[in-house]
Amino acid sequence: MNVVCGIDIGGTNTVIGIVDRDGNILDRMRVSTRQFDHAEVFFEKIADVIQVFFKGHSEYSLCGIGIGAPNGNYYTGNIEFAPNLKWEGVIKVTEIMQGFLPGIPVVLTNDANAAALGEKYYGSAAGKKDFIIITLGTGVGSGLVVNDQLVYGHDGFAGEIGHTIYDPDGRLCGCGRRGCLETYTSASGMVRTAKEFLANDKRDSLLRKINKEEITAADIGESAAKGDELALEIFDFTAKILGIKLADAVAHTSPSTIYIFGGVANAGDILMKPLKKYFNEYLLQVYKDKIALEFSGLEQNDAAVLGAAALVNHTL
Amino acid sequence: MNVVCGIDIGGTNTVIGIVDRDGNILDRMRVSTRQFDHAEVFFEKIADVIQVFFKGHSEYSLCGIGIGAPNGNYYTGNIEFAPNLKWEGVIKVTEIMQGFLPGIPVVLTNDANAAALGEKYYGSAAGKKDFIIITLGTGVGSGLVVNDQLVYGHDGFAGEIGHTIYDPDGRLCGCGRRGCLETYTSASGMVRTAKEFLANDKRDSLLRKINKEEITAADIGESAAKGDELALEIFDFTAKILGIKLADAVAHTSPSTIYIFGGVANAGDILMKPLKKYFNEYLLQVYKDKIALEFSGLEQNDAAVLGAAALVNHTL
Repeated sequence: MNVVCGIDIGGTNTVIGIVDRDGNILDRMRVSTRQFDHAEVFFEKIADVIQVFFKGHSEYSLCGIGIGAPNGNYYTGNIEFAPNLKWEGVIKVTEIMQGFLPGIPVVLTNDANAAALGEKYYGSAAGKKDFIIITLGTGVGSGLVVNDQLVYGHDGFAGEIGHTIYDPDGRLCGCGRRGCLETYTSASGMVRTAKEFLANDKRDSLLRKINKEEITAADIGESAAKGDELALEIFDFTAKILGIKLADAVAHTSPSTIYIFGGVANAGDILMKPLKKYFNEYLLQVYKDKIALEFSGLEQNDAAVLGAAALVNHTL
Repeated sequence: MNVVCGIDIGGTNTVIGIVDRDGNILDRMRVSTRQFDHAEVFFEKIADVIQVFFKGHSEYSLCGIGIGAPNGNYYTGNIEFAPNLKWEGVIKVTEIMQGFLPGIPVVLTNDANAAALGEKYYGSAAGKKDFIIITLGTGVGSGLVVNDQLVYGHDGFAGEIGHTIYDPDGRLCGCGRRGCLETYTSASGMVRTAKEFLANDKRDSLLRKINKEEITAADIGESAAKGDELALEIFDFTAKILGIKLADAVAHTSPSTIYIFGGVANAGDILMKPLKKYFNEYLLQVYKDKIALEFSGLEQNDAAVLGAAALVNHTL
């Protein structure tokens, strides 16, 4: 049976999924990303894991490898200056992989673009020609689909909505600028908000029972679910900023649907209810009540691998 | 010889241009838009002017009509709720025109999209696959090209960068919301800035010699050209806001070039110099020094007509 490898490279771990054409994950393997100081050695390990797997599974035939990675560039096949990876500078991913596995097509894109492909082919966006996926995780990523095509832009780096600026004098971002959406609506952005709120507000809160340095976005979600006022206000604050910037996104490409994905989305209605309110409030009249805001139809654990696999199984 | 009509519908006047395939404007006629209270009567007049022209010019054969209009929708062929036109609600432009001129193809889009087409085929964007045009006039419009295609979005209303929000608590916009880019960087936005600066600043300025209610963006440009400090600061303020929002636009679709067009652009380097500074300052690292910021290659008076003509002469 023909299968592809969908590889999700994360800062901590890398998952290699064996995926059939229908998007079933037949097997998956894990490699620690962080323990490799050199990219070349890391990719040699990945190639090795793949070769060992297919030697043991002669029923499968490898047709191609799709890779989703932070700052992965579809056009060049390189990972370029990814702040969340150890390896510096430009890493020629497709070239390196093809060196280890000659004759196998290798395609690379960034993780959020891969998620958009996954949403299209294995999630909720079947038949959708214009949509956006926003990933709210450690950072904030985005994949844009326009006219049934992924938007790569002139340089392959389009779709960085997480780095649009909410407040030019706002929070310092990992990118070196101030006030990026990511600094407010990523998991770590919400934790920053929690620390600010806890410091500036005297009310009691379930969050005060947690060591301030250890609060996570999940803690804020759990406290909000229990009706904790301060935690609910943190979600309201987050939803307002995200709602404004998503309304801006609509004014660029006018998608029919925006899908929300990633750890912060696990809060469910606690996030979605205020987000829909603010999104519609800040939307330009001509778009009002036309643009759906939904959670992704992808399983959190499968999305990146399926998206990477879709790079080979489909083109967009 | 085969020709097309490129029609530019503005709030005050409408220009009908007779355009050949190479983008030469062979003739042009003007109709007052504002004097028509009813859209149907207006379009009957337009059809009449066209018929009279072609009766008198048997050397020309009319192949099609392209129309650029505020809130013109490519998909529906309707003008929908255009705030700068007298006619309310939905106006079925292509249907009405085809009623008056049976057998002639009629295509409609909004004025900024038409400008993008004009830039591509008759301006500076030949061969460019990913670019944006920003029109700084009475309002702020934008046309986006991605993967060599105009971005219409799911509903035909994509590309409203003038209505992305700079400051959610900022200036009241004609769209009913607050802090839209248009309220700061349109010609009238600059005049608002001038009035604020003149009221809050005690310095002398050439602008104080003009009746406060009569100051125009052109006056600010002329004063700045003479070295007037306050006028230069108004441009600096305008350029900063535009620079931030254009940096945001890049994070969506990553164009290779952004073209600036419209009355405010007539200020030339007085606008462009600070704009380039702020744009590069607020650009995400991965885009720095890659995205050109240029004035449109279209003549101010021809752009809209050529863009509308390009709707028929070319598809994008």
